[in-house]
Amino acid sequence: MCRWAAYRGNPLYLEELVSSPAHSLIEQSHCASRAKTATNGDGFGIAWYGDHAEPGRYRDILPAWSDCNLRSLARQIRSPLFLAHVRAATNGGTRRDNCHPFVFGPWSFMHNGQIAGFDKIRRKMEAQLSDELFNARTGTTDSELLFLLALQMGMAEDPVGAVGRAIAEVERLSAEASDTTLVRFTAAFSDGRSLFAIRYATDHKPPTLYAAPMGGEGGYCLVSEPLNDDVDAWTEIPDGSAVMVSDDGLATSVFRPAGLAVAA
Amino acid sequence: MCRWAAYRGNPLYLEELVSSPAHSLIEQSHCASRAKTATNGDGFGIAWYGDHAEPGRYRDILPAWSDCNLRSLARQIRSPLFLAHVRAATNGGTRRDNCHPFVFGPWSFMHNGQIAGFDKIRRKMEAQLSDELFNARTGTTDSELLFLLALQMGMAEDPVGAVGRAIAEVERLSAEASDTTLVRFTAAFSDGRSLFAIRYATDHKPPTLYAAPMGGEGGYCLVSEPLNDDVDAWTEIPDGSAVMVSDDGLATSVFRPAGLAVAA
Amino acid sequence: MCRWAAYRGNPLYLEELVSSPAHSLIEQSHCASRAKTATNGDGFGIAWYGDHAEPGRYRDILPAWSDCNLRSLARQIRSPLFLAHVRAATNGGTRRDNCHPFVFGPWSFMHNGQIAGFDKIRRKMEAQLSDELFNARTGTTDSELLFLLALQMGMAEDPVGAVGRAIAEVERLSAEASDTTLVRFTAAFSDGRSLFAIRYATDHKPPTLYAAPMGGEGGYCLVSEPLNDDVDAWTEIPDGSAVMVSDDGLATSVFRPAGLAVAA
Amino acid sequence: MCRWAAYRGNPLYLEELVSSPAHSLIEQSHCASRAKTATNGDGFGIAWYGDHAEPGRYRDILPAWSDCNLRSLARQIRSPLFLAHVRAATNGGTRRDNCHPFVFGPWSFMHNGQIAGFDKIRRKMEAQLSDELFNARTGTTDSELLFLLALQMGMAEDPVGAVGRAIAEVERLSAEASDTTLVRFTAAFSDGRSLFAIRYATDHKPPTLYAAPMGGEGGYCLVSEPLNDDVDAWTEIPDGSAVMVSDDGLATSVFRPAGLAVAA
Repeated sequence: MCRWAAYRGNPLYLEELVSSPAHSLIEQSHCASRAKTATNGDGFGIAWYGDHAEPGRYRDILPAWSDCNLRSLARQIRSPLFLAHVRAATNGGTRRDNCHPFVFGPWSFMHNGQIAGFDKIRRKMEAQLSDELFNARTGTTDSELLFLLALQMGMAEDPVGAVGRAIAEVERLSAEASDTTLVRFTAAFSDGRSLFAIRYATDHKPPTLYAAPMGGEGGYCLVSEPLNDDVDAWTEIPDGSAVMVSDDGLATSVFRPAGLAVAA
Repeated sequence: MCRWAAYRGNPLYLEELVSSPAHSLIEQSHCASRAKTATNGDGFGIAWYGDHAEPGRYRDILPAWSDCNLRSLARQIRSPLFLAHVRAATNGGTRRDNCHPFVFGPWSFMHNGQIAGFDKIRRKMEAQLSDELFNARTGTTDSELLFLLALQMGMAEDPVGAVGRAIAEVERLSAEASDTTLVRFTAAFSDGRSLFAIRYATDHKPPTLYAAPMGGEGGYCLVSEPLNDDVDAWTEIPDGSAVMVSDDGLATSVFRPAGLAVAA
Repeated sequence: MCRWAAYRGNPLYLEELVSSPAHSLIEQSHCASRAKTATNGDGFGIAWYGDHAEPGRYRDILPAWSDCNLRSLARQIRSPLFLAHVRAATNGGTRRDNCHPFVFGPWSFMHNGQIAGFDKIRRKMEAQLSDELFNARTGTTDSELLFLLALQMGMAEDPVGAVGRAIAEVERLSAEASDTTLVRFTAAFSDGRSLFAIRYATDHKPPTLYAAPMGGEGGYCLVSEPLNDDVDAWTEIPDGSAVMVSDDGLATSVFRPAGLAVAA
Repeated sequence: MCRWAAYRGNPLYLEELVSSPAHSLIEQSHCASRAKTATNGDGFGIAWYGDHAEPGRYRDILPAWSDCNLRSLARQIRSPLFLAHVRAATNGGTRRDNCHPFVFGPWSFMHNGQIAGFDKIRRKMEAQLSDELFNARTGTTDSELLFLLALQMGMAEDPVGAVGRAIAEVERLSAEASDTTLVRFTAAFSDGRSLFAIRYATDHKPPTLYAAPMGGEGGYCLVSEPLNDDVDAWTEIPDGSAVMVSDDGLATSVFRPAGLAVAA
């Protein structure tokens, strides 16, 4: 399983989540204490929002713990909204194009989870993309394709709904292709204004998702696993939830894959 | 433009073509004297046949001239049949999966050239692949897709014919998609027994292709550009030709894209 | 020869020098028109000053033209003082630790040039470093060692003078070790407040150095070669000069290696 | 701690130790079951003897488990004598030059262990090297420097004795520099004819070392940890031992750091 952290609030140096804390994302990736897979050495990435509408991004295939560039960037860059991810490969080889976060225009997206039988439905997922979104695909992961499918299904107008429609479509294609359908999905994504996260699984065993206030009034950090041992600080977000962090603080709602998949 | 060299004959250390000569592939890639593009610093690859049916392969994204691993491997590995390629990117980012040679089962393939308007026909080319060949695609280049399309069209039974059918299909799709059709193609490929090469272009301006005897009786080297200044040693293969190097030596024949594209 | 650009003035996005102009550093590195060596594909680096005393830094060994991370960072990062460098290796293998700029505390340093016979004097140069500076050496280039030697000789108090003493010491050691002494040196360096550059060679054939106003009042860009064809915009800095860009604008003075080399 | 495996016997494909077994070196590096450090994701290397006196070598900084080149090379290369290493960094950054095995002429060397207080004695160790050996140093690890020091102290004539003298010198320098001396050393090395290994620690807690017959008559495999669960197959080599595998099979002797350090 991958690990990730996301933040929205007053500008924060990335290092506060990525490299500084006793249980920062980098230390977690090196010496996993609760991880289900052995390690997270298959690359990492950060996306942050600054002066432009589209996010900056830095990804590399080294283990996060040995990348001097990452430490220097995390120390210099301060942002009110950013995503950070360390990867343990399930689908797709170890290369930059397969490292999260994925970006498209103002959107960024990162994911921890899996689509069982992805190889059987990959082509049908790709077939639903517009030429523009199809050509934007540079890697081979299920995560990137799920992101592009959500963009296709109207992420710009209705972010959480579009992800719901994309997952519903994945479930429909999986059911067609095989007897069992298994989607586990814990993701964070942003358009540069709000920060969204979703926790969901067809078998009700989704990867974990936690939230904690951070960085002063209205600021929140969302993580795949708590970044420190202060257990009380972190609230677990239940299975089947969508989270939105905006100027109004954090709001959660019920999430379920929804309705007909209608191409935007 | 990329550069490449291929060899079939008595076992030869790879370094004799890759790193040793005054005008080896590595030196060519660093300090191009006849190149049309400025440099060939976008990665390299070698594929060689040894004890197994499928070739060994080593690719990396560093410039070939600065890769110590390549020098050591080229010095140690001796093979009766190998391909070597240095890349100047046209389509597809700089990453290992986009470096030639591409391999599938016993086949290896490398290419110098271009398909104009590739973005417009990429999806239609991919749609013709079997699931197995579609899933074998790990990069984003036109070259890899052309190779997979030729495999789809019967490379195993009729190597040159299958490449001809693949190019004919590309030309058909290009004509559909736009007014002009431009394919330039100089490639080498092998099944581990014979070495094949093709030089062809719709506008009769294909990248160059040369052959020279090498490595004792019946051995030949095929190159995109002569590896040294001994001009008389190298025979230019004309536009519209297919070359086969086998136990019977080198044979050339007329090449033209052919017939109906029939999925195997 | 390497290429570099440095800027001090009103905050500027790095991309304006690194990737945007018709003749940006990246394009220069890919398709050199005036270069003496064939290409600059042996890595690159940027150092910029932001909120902290020490600079941020990003280096990698890919050719600059194929690094997506560099393009994204150069687009997002805005700084009043930065250095950018693309490398054509002379001494030292292709690896991150050999990429410029080098940094130590608040100092950054990048260089274009050479010390003839460096292998013969390397140990004697290293012997003059304090343990702290010796242990700060992570690469194998002459440039990094010259920078550390200048730090040893008082860069903090007298930047240009310390470089002069370091070069004088190199010349003394070279004369001891062989009949001929050849140092060519065009470098830029900064402590995060002022931007310095020096052009000097024992044989009066130093690599070129140009300056041009940029980015509004008092801002200047220093480059190893003009970044565009607007020849009139760039002033060539003569051999044997030191340049300082500060709040008072650009000032040049005579530079010569000086005095006794006194270890700090 | 690092992990390694070495083999001498009838020619064996490297994959049999590197990637094939249920508990191969690659799987060990990914999902360590007995490891003291969390993971071995800081690079890897192989050195093998073929047709030339000097070994071939392939190193890279990716985690071994995600390197397609390594899998292909290990499948193709067959050798009667080879070393393979996966790294968990203690001293020295993650880069190719710090990956084991180190090579010099016909010699190869890899190590698992540590020199406490290495920073304090590094300069004095380097000072004992000839110019040729000093210039051969390209990385920053204690392991590489220990190897060069052993070469300096007569490895060619007396391999195990030279390592003993090098370790004695390290202990002497450590005692000079601080109150406590701690050297832990489990290494394998070869000149292309015999395979040597040493297990030793000043505190009698050296990293483990095991041996097992392999590959037919007279062949042996030496490993830092057993490669499979067939516990009876592996013999633990005791603390304070030297091992030599040659045409006469495996011989062990007492090892202790010895005598005066005499520069060759």
